Amino acid sequence: MTLKFYYAPHTCSLASHIALEQAGADYEAIRLSFESGDQRKPDYLAINPKARVPALVTPQGVLTETPALLVYIAQSHPKAGLAPLDDPYALAEAQAFNSYLCSTVHVAHAHRMRGSRWADDPAAHKAMQKKVPQSVGEAFGLIERGMLRGPWVLGDTCSICDFYLFTLAQWLEADGVDTSRLPRVMDHRQRVAQLPVVQKVIAEELG
Amino acid sequence: MTLKFYYAPHTCSLASHIALEQAGADYEAIRLSFESGDQRKPDYLAINPKARVPALVTPQGVLTETPALLVYIAQSHPKAGLAPLDDPYALAEAQAFNSYLCSTVHVAHAHRMRGSRWADDPAAHKAMQKKVPQSVGEAFGLIERGMLRGPWVLGDTCSICDFYLFTLAQWLEADGVDTSRLPRVMDHRQRVAQLPVVQKVIAEELG
Repeated sequence: MTLKFYYAPHTCSLASHIALEQAGADYEAIRLSFESGDQRKPDYLAINPKARVPALVTPQGVLTETPALLVYIAQSHPKAGLAPLDDPYALAEAQAFNSYLCSTVHVAHAHRMRGSRWADDPAAHKAMQKKVPQSVGEAFGLIERGMLRGPWVLGDTCSICDFYLFTLAQWLEADGVDTSRLPRVMDHRQRVAQLPVVQKVIAEELG
Repeated sequence: MTLKFYYAPHTCSLASHIALEQAGADYEAIRLSFESGDQRKPDYLAINPKARVPALVTPQGVLTETPALLVYIAQSHPKAGLAPLDDPYALAEAQAFNSYLCSTVHVAHAHRMRGSRWADDPAAHKAMQKKVPQSVGEAFGLIERGMLRGPWVLGDTCSICDFYLFTLAQWLEADGVDTSRLPRVMDHRQRVAQLPVVQKVIAEELG
C-alpha cells in the first residue's frame, strides 16, 4: 500500500518528506495549507487530532511526530541506511539529537508565532517573540559547538538527523539569529541543500 | 562497565530511572539537587552541557534526552521486553507517544516554572503560568481520549511509554489540571505506581 504523507510547506514536515524520498519509499505527498487552516478541518482532525503535521498513513495506522516518523522510515527501508538501527548507542545519539530538535529547538522557535499555545496575553506573546533570537541562538550554539560532528550530524554518514537539522536551520534568519556565529551549522545547511533529493522535495513542496 | 545515571528528584529523569531498574541494568544512580543548582556546576556541565537531566554515562559516551535513553535502555537490555524494537510500526507508535510527551506535554508543564527560557518579562511568566492548567489539561485530554490504549499505553504490554507517562502525570495536580476529567490517565498512574520496581525507585529518589 502506498503511504500517504501529509505535510505543510515551511514546517518541520520537510524532514520526513526528504527522508521518504531518500529512502525510495512508495508514498503520496498531500499538501495542507496552514494559511487556510487545513490542519483544523474535520477531515484532517480525523487523521491527526493534534492538528499538526507531519502525519503518515500506513497500512497499520497513522503515525505522527517527526522523530518517530524519521526512525520509522529508516527502519522500514533498511537498505537506505538512514539511521544506525542496530547499534543501541549510535541510535540513541541520533535520537538524542532529534529529541533536542523537537523539544528544545523547535519549541524555542515556536514562541515567535505560536505564543497562544502557552499564554493568552498579547503582551506575553510579544515578550516571547523578543527572546526567540536568544533562545534559538543558544540552542543552535550547542549544536554548533559539539552536537554537529561534521561533515554530517553523526559524522561521516548522512542520516535522518541531517534532514531534521537542515529543516529547522531554514528558520534561523526569520528567527533573528545571528548566523555568522554558526559557521558549521550554515556550512551543513548548504551541504544538505545541495543534495539532489532535497532540491527535488523542496521544489515539490513550494511548486 | 557500570552505567552512571544522573537524575534529579521530581523531574522527568524518573522515567529513565524506572526503565533502568526494570531492565535489570548495571547502573549507579547519582542524584543532583536542582535546588542547589548542581546542574549548572562545571563538573556536571562537562557531562551534559545542556544543564539538564537525565544523563547516562555509557562506555561509549554520554547520552541525554528521555526518549533516547528509554529506547537505548530497551535496546541494550532486550530480554526485558521494554519496547517493540523489531516492529517498525509498533516502535514508531511508542516513539510518537514519547515524542508527544517530551515536546508538547513536558513543554506545556515547563511554562509554570521555567518561563525564563522563553521570555524575560515577569508579567509574561505570570501569563504563561495562568495557561498551564489549560495547555497541560488539553494535552492530557488527547492522551485520555485515545493515545492511552489501556491497560498500558501500548495496550496489553507494559513498556517504556508507561514509565514516561507515569512520570509526567505526577505533576497534574501541581499544574492545576482537573484530574476528574482524566479517569483513564489517573487509573493508569495508579497502576504504574503499584509496580514494585516503581516503588523501589521512588523510595531511592526521595530517600
